[in-house]
Amino acid sequence: MGLTLAQKLIKSHLVEGEMKVGTEIGLRIDQTLTQDATGTMAYLEFEAMGVDRVKTERSVAYIDHNTLQTGFENADDHRFIQTVTKKHGIYFSRPGNGICHQVHLERFGIPGKTLIGSDSHTPTGGGIGMLAMGAGGLDVAVAMGGGTYYIPMPKMTRINLTGYLKPWVSAKDVILEVLRIMSVKGGVGKIIEYGGEGVKTLSVPERATITNMGAELGATTSVFPSDEITLAFLKAQGRENDWVELLPDEDAVYDEVIDIDLCSLTPMAACPHMPDNVKTTDEIGRIKVDQVAIGSCTNSSYVDMMKVASILKGKTIDPSVSLCIAPGSKQVLNMLALNGALSDMISAGARILESACGPCIGMGQSPNSGGVSLRTFNRNFEGRSGTKDGKIYLVSPEVAAASALTGYLTDPRELGDAPQISMPEHFIVNDNMIVPPASPEEAKNVEVLRGPNIKPFPKTEPLPADITAKAVLKVGDNITTDHIMPAGAKILPYRSNIPHLSQYCFAVCDETFPERIKAEGKGFIIGGANYGQGSSREHAALVPLYLGVKAVITKSFARIHVANLVNAGILPFTFSDEVDYDRIDQMDELELVGIRDCIENNKPVVLKNITKGEEYNLDSSHLSERQRAMLLCGGLLDYTREMNK
Amino acid sequence: MGLTLAQKLIKSHLVEGEMKVGTEIGLRIDQTLTQDATGTMAYLEFEAMGVDRVKTERSVAYIDHNTLQTGFENADDHRFIQTVTKKHGIYFSRPGNGICHQVHLERFGIPGKTLIGSDSHTPTGGGIGMLAMGAGGLDVAVAMGGGTYYIPMPKMTRINLTGYLKPWVSAKDVILEVLRIMSVKGGVGKIIEYGGEGVKTLSVPERATITNMGAELGATTSVFPSDEITLAFLKAQGRENDWVELLPDEDAVYDEVIDIDLCSLTPMAACPHMPDNVKTTDEIGRIKVDQVAIGSCTNSSYVDMMKVASILKGKTIDPSVSLCIAPGSKQVLNMLALNGALSDMISAGARILESACGPCIGMGQSPNSGGVSLRTFNRNFEGRSGTKDGKIYLVSPEVAAASALTGYLTDPRELGDAPQISMPEHFIVNDNMIVPPASPEEAKNVEVLRGPNIKPFPKTEPLPADITAKAVLKVGDNITTDHIMPAGAKILPYRSNIPHLSQYCFAVCDETFPERIKAEGKGFIIGGANYGQGSSREHAALVPLYLGVKAVITKSFARIHVANLVNAGILPFTFSDEVDYDRIDQMDELELVGIRDCIENNKPVVLKNITKGEEYNLDSSHLSERQRAMLLCGGLLDYTREMNK
Repeated sequence: MGLTLAQKLIKSHLVEGEMKVGTEIGLRIDQTLTQDATGTMAYLEFEAMGVDRVKTERSVAYIDHNTLQTGFENADDHRFIQTVTKKHGIYFSRPGNGICHQVHLERFGIPGKTLIGSDSHTPTGGGIGMLAMGAGGLDVAVAMGGGTYYIPMPKMTRINLTGYLKPWVSAKDVILEVLRIMSVKGGVGKIIEYGGEGVKTLSVPERATITNMGAELGATTSVFPSDEITLAFLKAQGRENDWVELLPDEDAVYDEVIDIDLCSLTPMAACPHMPDNVKTTDEIGRIKVDQVAIGSCTNSSYVDMMKVASILKGKTIDPSVSLCIAPGSKQVLNMLALNGALSDMISAGARILESACGPCIGMGQSPNSGGVSLRTFNRNFEGRSGTKDGKIYLVSPEVAAASALTGYLTDPRELGDAPQISMPEHFIVNDNMIVPPASPEEAKNVEVLRGPNIKPFPKTEPLPADITAKAVLKVGDNITTDHIMPAGAKILPYRSNIPHLSQYCFAVCDETFPERIKAEGKGFIIGGANYGQGSSREHAALVPLYLGVKAVITKSFARIHVANLVNAGILPFTFSDEVDYDRIDQMDELELVGIRDCIENNKPVVLKNITKGEEYNLDSSHLSERQRAMLLCGGLLDYTREMNK
Repeated sequence: MGLTLAQKLIKSHLVEGEMKVGTEIGLRIDQTLTQDATGTMAYLEFEAMGVDRVKTERSVAYIDHNTLQTGFENADDHRFIQTVTKKHGIYFSRPGNGICHQVHLERFGIPGKTLIGSDSHTPTGGGIGMLAMGAGGLDVAVAMGGGTYYIPMPKMTRINLTGYLKPWVSAKDVILEVLRIMSVKGGVGKIIEYGGEGVKTLSVPERATITNMGAELGATTSVFPSDEITLAFLKAQGRENDWVELLPDEDAVYDEVIDIDLCSLTPMAACPHMPDNVKTTDEIGRIKVDQVAIGSCTNSSYVDMMKVASILKGKTIDPSVSLCIAPGSKQVLNMLALNGALSDMISAGARILESACGPCIGMGQSPNSGGVSLRTFNRNFEGRSGTKDGKIYLVSPEVAAASALTGYLTDPRELGDAPQISMPEHFIVNDNMIVPPASPEEAKNVEVLRGPNIKPFPKTEPLPADITAKAVLKVGDNITTDHIMPAGAKILPYRSNIPHLSQYCFAVCDETFPERIKAEGKGFIIGGANYGQGSSREHAALVPLYLGVKAVITKSFARIHVANLVNAGILPFTFSDEVDYDRIDQMDELELVGIRDCIENNKPVVLKNITKGEEYNLDSSHLSERQRAMLLCGGLLDYTREMNK
């Protein structure tokens, strides 16, 4: 039986487990990337592991999230990352050099390699035939140290593309169609593999737009074959030697096949407030637009920008629309500056922003209150734009540019002939904003510079024999990681400062929680069903660790958060009988008797309620042997240190 | 006896008073400008005056301060200003179109006209022969309504320029030399007029750099003659018809004359933390630089940018330096994008920021903690960069660019031949981001859009017969407007929201003050000497007005703040005998008996201390008759409404 492309990539990197859907497999990681919002913590974690030099083939640190610098914190973080990477063998992409996924595709991505990145849109690399996955910072740190990366073996979904995109229809519309079909939960536990004749009609940046937004399907990753189109892209980047051909076997078997006829697609938009709330522009109708934002790791390639420039050329945007454009990388920006396209944008009235994530992560350009904003980005969650009641529509660059001219959501087919933009034969290559690491010899003398915003990784300790602590917080169902550790433009600059962040922990539910647990010195959290859903941020585990949370006991957990808790050395249990949840009151004195013995020897766990004089059975069957070993050590960091001894 | 150029400009606009140094004169204002941080309030004030359409020759509203948009507030403010200006006959320069002073010089400034702007760097217009002055928002609102602008008649200082600037020495070094000679207090009560043969060697943008930073001398304004150089600039902007020749009389008499030989100047820097702490680069020596920032209303002209691009061309900035560049206007940015200069900057590693004030007002690009930042800006006050312990040096574009390449403060003369940049014969003129106002007919149908961040001007009332209130706050000497109403990236977005701002009033001195006065409903403030020094922000009067402050009684006042208090209808008195300051305790019950009668009939004012059973004599001799009339009405707004009836 033949293999899918993704299965081939997995097989060639498999170091543990069997390729049986749902079981844990361990992969060798060739490349890693970080961005700055998650990177500071990842490098603090890497430092804590005590490894001198990364063991990956290529690790790159990008600065693209915290580039506004409204206080000293961001520049301190940039400097820390620049020096820590220099010391430990990691390439450093300077602020202004561009968005991690765009630059990685241009300069570092290699077909057939595995890549994990501390950013959920790392699957962008699938556009060039990589097995590229988003991961927690600690997972990336472990991979840099040569450790294995674990995932449950995914199912295989094939999306079969036929035909070609009609004028004014774009790659963004392809992934919007996939989201419409599959929904934001439709990709969970799956790798989405694109194939069929239609693939040949899509350039690498177009493919990358599609794999990038595969993250919104909840998929493990998405991947395109590596073919002559891939070769042409790499050649234009001066990297043809990095090319290998990668195709699925002809008799590969997929768990699911979806057919999409590219010819049938028309311009679409994901309506507020979910990326799968997809309709055609016709269905949505002529709504008034206040802002248009073009860029982000989804749609900021040279070709995207050239289409936009060509639509804007010689025209003026509607006076009621604020149009901002952030080209994805220094390479893209420089090419636009040289060929007149940037001038076309500026002349039409565009506000040119630095090559960075910017408005896509709520870092600037928040729309007016109640405003409608069309964005070529990947997420339109409520409030993510920084404007609570902003209405965000996700669209292609073509729809965005056309609408900026009219002031209304506009089907670009109204504009007449579509611009004919082709991939350049040669991109301008100038890597002077990518700083290579010091040689192993020089590295000894590199001083890692830390500002007052860089605080060490929280203290961990091996699991003790017994734990007695109070139920310092009891919360209800569906607690998200945003409840546990809020984000936003005001808090994001403190991602490397767990002590500072800790004052906002659970602020949405109970402002007094941080003070209370600090006074107690330690505590348990009692939660309802689906605890820890939403964003994968590891800070939702690290901050509780810092505050002294020893165990989280709930009716049920969200998958990624429970992994983050284990990584942080916090015990995650569920009630064997959900009704026990009701028996515990906040501030009850609780005890996990003989807990080390239970974890070590896989014995049933019992929670004693000292205040009430009761006992409850807890479930720990979801923990793998590896996770039990981690919990005994005090988390993934200590576990890795232990394994490396 | 002949007149100076400034005296001629005053004479041709004098509507009240005599040109006698120190006495109040009233001027007719031809043009106004606002920026967004002060503009929202100015337009709320204008609306409150009930005038349909501005009575100036030209009024322009710029958006250049709050352009980061980290929340909905900025976009709401922009939309409010765009619609309110459309309705009332004011031109609107859209966000991204550039910095107010740079754009005004390019597109609107006219030699011989008077201009007031709600920004302290409005004297930039002096570079083109305007009488251009910074003013409070309320003063600008009154001027837009056709009202007179009042200043004390200034002394005349002539700066006599001879020779020419040597290669690598620039206009910035001229104004730094003036600051070195005169100090930051040296210009108070004066107009600085430039003359002499050296003037002919300076282009309009160079002259504007010099008049711009005259604000740092504390001068009323600075002015250059309008000559053939001025004509060439206007011609290149397609505005030669706006030119008139303006020169001082040959026998003009100056209160003070300072001679500067341009040939003698070398590259300089203003060292932390004051613009007059000026040394040559030689004197300062080879200090390590962490950041270089190029732009601001002082040094963001086309010629400035071309010099920078030419220095950077084909090179790479030092890896330890973050270089950001914000061209001053869309015109400048577009010309750089078309002629390859922008590509030279990008290639060298510059981070290109939107054409706006940005880092100059602490809006982004804060340096790392303890970092050294060279900036082509105008102010280097402690903490203004957003980094409390940042060390800011003010330098020319040449010094900035040279240092970005080396990583150290660098005398650009080390670089060899200086770039030969000349003024273009034609600037690219495209005013499509300047929205003209509606016609008077259309204006009736224009709806002014207000978001939740736009709150009305605080309520005022005519002066009552008597006032009884508690001394809700007692503070010491040298209270600045930053104590009264703090600024910074976190508070600046709320400049149109007095209720929100009010919770930060006096936060530095006493966090409980806003709560306390709200509970009382009204109150007096007791202050020491030099109360209200520092920035001219009118919010330091409007917020106390909102909170119910009825009178401020001090040992002495700073000049601008006392005017702002009167404008806001708050009574400003000083103790006749300073020892009475010590007799009052915070929360004493006080009474101003028969205060309306005292102000109306210029009678001695007595403050009764009900708690202590004492009486103190107060001094009100600093109030002009006009100011007394304003106080009776409830402030400048009511006074103007009254006068317009």
